[in-house]
Amino acid sequence: MRILSSQVSKHVGEEVTVAGWLHRVRALKSVTFAIVRDRDGLVQVVAAEPDLVKRLAVLTEETVIEVTGTVTANQQAPGGVEITSPAVRELSEPAVASPFDLYRPVVSAALPTVLDNAAVALRHPRLRAPFEISAASVAGYRRALDRLGFTEVHTPKVVSSATESGANVFALDWFGRKAYLAQSPQFYKQTMVGVFERVYEVGPVFRAEPHDTARHLAQYTSLDAELGFVTDHRDVMAVVREAVAEMVATIAERAPGAVELLGVKLPDVPEEIPSIHFADAQELLARETDEDPRGEPDLAPAHERWLCEWAMREYGSQFLFVTGYPMRKRPFYTHPDPQRPEFSNSFDLLFRGLELVTGGQRLHRHSDYLAALEARGESPEPYAGYLAAFAHGMPPHGGFALGLERFVARLTEADNIRWTTLFPRDLHRLAP
Amino acid sequence: MRILSSQVSKHVGEEVTVAGWLHRVRALKSVTFAIVRDRDGLVQVVAAEPDLVKRLAVLTEETVIEVTGTVTANQQAPGGVEITSPAVRELSEPAVASPFDLYRPVVSAALPTVLDNAAVALRHPRLRAPFEISAASVAGYRRALDRLGFTEVHTPKVVSSATESGANVFALDWFGRKAYLAQSPQFYKQTMVGVFERVYEVGPVFRAEPHDTARHLAQYTSLDAELGFVTDHRDVMAVVREAVAEMVATIAERAPGAVELLGVKLPDVPEEIPSIHFADAQELLARETDEDPRGEPDLAPAHERWLCEWAMREYGSQFLFVTGYPMRKRPFYTHPDPQRPEFSNSFDLLFRGLELVTGGQRLHRHSDYLAALEARGESPEPYAGYLAAFAHGMPPHGGFALGLERFVARLTEADNIRWTTLFPRDLHRLAP
Repeated sequence: MRILSSQVSKHVGEEVTVAGWLHRVRALKSVTFAIVRDRDGLVQVVAAEPDLVKRLAVLTEETVIEVTGTVTANQQAPGGVEITSPAVRELSEPAVASPFDLYRPVVSAALPTVLDNAAVALRHPRLRAPFEISAASVAGYRRALDRLGFTEVHTPKVVSSATESGANVFALDWFGRKAYLAQSPQFYKQTMVGVFERVYEVGPVFRAEPHDTARHLAQYTSLDAELGFVTDHRDVMAVVREAVAEMVATIAERAPGAVELLGVKLPDVPEEIPSIHFADAQELLARETDEDPRGEPDLAPAHERWLCEWAMREYGSQFLFVTGYPMRKRPFYTHPDPQRPEFSNSFDLLFRGLELVTGGQRLHRHSDYLAALEARGESPEPYAGYLAAFAHGMPPHGGFALGLERFVARLTEADNIRWTTLFPRDLHRLAP
Repeated sequence: MRILSSQVSKHVGEEVTVAGWLHRVRALKSVTFAIVRDRDGLVQVVAAEPDLVKRLAVLTEETVIEVTGTVTANQQAPGGVEITSPAVRELSEPAVASPFDLYRPVVSAALPTVLDNAAVALRHPRLRAPFEISAASVAGYRRALDRLGFTEVHTPKVVSSATESGANVFALDWFGRKAYLAQSPQFYKQTMVGVFERVYEVGPVFRAEPHDTARHLAQYTSLDAELGFVTDHRDVMAVVREAVAEMVATIAERAPGAVELLGVKLPDVPEEIPSIHFADAQELLARETDEDPRGEPDLAPAHERWLCEWAMREYGSQFLFVTGYPMRKRPFYTHPDPQRPEFSNSFDLLFRGLELVTGGQRLHRHSDYLAALEARGESPEPYAGYLAAFAHGMPPHGGFALGLERFVARLTEADNIRWTTLFPRDLHRLAP
């Protein structure tokens, strides 16, 4: 019966079996040290028997082996134990040498080389760690929303019209008809508010982003939520706070090894995340910096960074909500601020200088949708299935979306979102 | 502060606020009964005040309202309480009449009409219930695999070559290059065994199924898992058993209302699900039925049904594993049975007469993959990213896939998988 590397130290003096990848072999004069890597960590195996030493000398790293031997305490060994008098059985053919030394603390290869060799590169503990954080993040997200009475849904990823934004969509051939990959579950999650009141979805979204940047991907994992019976966008922000707090807590709980290995400083999520209105943010920037962004319809990246530093100084928070973005820069389903209709009941959540979440209150009256589409010179026809939800009675509602890979990239301070995406898809990359 | 319908009975004598959809209005001579539906259920509101009675008389069903009033015990009312002396506030415009009477116990409309009007049809408690079961199923699936040390992954849904089966793929335009929607995460989940040993994914898969049947969809939600360091397919079957048991348990825990409403009989999942080898199943069918399927490479649907009835008689089990399907009908990555190489180390899990899960042990030696591809006359070139995982050392491994919508359809005894798919996609249907 195989045990994991993390369990070996509990069996000193006993015979155990471990299995994993041959992480490193070091031949000294009289003994050979073989480090075995499994999903939990590393364990040292000491071979002294001449035939075995000879066999290990020709085994390449990454060959999969099973080792049965005696657990022996050794202060010098990693974890304080090692396996002695081992019997070794190969579970794979001798492995082709990796293009990287996986046993070195850091992979020095450049990102494209790592991505081209993902199958083996991701085995490096430092390259794997972001995905442990990613899995824990999603688990925390679901845990928070389950607790708050949300229902998980799965919506179509292929749609009949490119209505949501019109630009940056992938077209495909659907049994001879033209169809498009969904840019977001936006229309479906809103429709489902009419059924479940509160829904969430974790799934892929597709953006035919023509830019090649460190922040954009053509497929990413979107954590979406939508809830009905809100007063305004502030009720949505309260859910965002709960979700992000539980994500951070679940990372601490489920991926402590990855957090430690990468030296991630998990942020405190304040009970109430500070917020500033877009107009006030512009005033603040005009007053306190050399620039005057008033009149601009959006915040520049440099302004987002400055505001995050300001929130840290003022409130000790790495998170900041900016609310009330101008209507003209938000999608047509955005609900205006009833008091100041040029501004919207929307928000972004900034985290460490970058936008992490976008959300807000949506229109819920059918007539408002018809007016919003007419104002854009659009026909309601392609939106028929979506508009039906509002015609048949929808409560005030709102929601948000959080990009998983971007969240993990900010947490781990990755300089490119591709470090936190298993097999990135972009302008150039379709494989592996 | 709004409370949910399920909480109303705890507040007898108090003033409460509820909100939801106007499920039904019934005007009697002196009073009007309004039933409000929210995500938790129904609550009766009694209006006697003449102005309110007049307002309710013109409010269409499905209009969203908020009601504040006094909770009063009434044995005749649903749940034993009703809200009296109500103040009613409309939260939506008056709703367009639904094409169905949502208040009737059963929707009599045919499936196409229901699907065309999904936004409102799914509000019917009986049509919504399968999706509550679906959400609970997925939660149970993840709970089982999290407990067993699996890591959740998110893999690309767009791939550069149609390698996995060659047929039934959707082609798309990827920045001017030809690409395909992924038919399964098969290659990626295997590759990730090299990184995490045990992985799972819940996500959409795409099949360009040219048939229009009650069982096939062009997009469905696949619950995939893959694990390393197995002895053979039986280790995979043990994980399938754990996953299915936890799915059923979580449905009972999280969706009891849906189970009751639909009269779902949740199956017992035996500690060890009975299994029969494909060859033995054929012998049994030849001996005990009028047909002789020996020599056929697969089981016919009628044979699957017969075997399930047999398993019920013999073992009292609604689940039956059939193992050892012939190699010639299984994909190229299938591991043969070392003792009888014409048979594979694969299995199907049958449930109530239908295949629910397909899985098995995979090849893990690089040379076996090269040989398997050569035997099919295929070049290894398009498989480069996948084959790299095996070249660099992979343990014996296996996995399985379970179609979520099909599972829920069998549980709820739906006659068409479209009853358990939120917005189905098929040969004809791309909207809503």
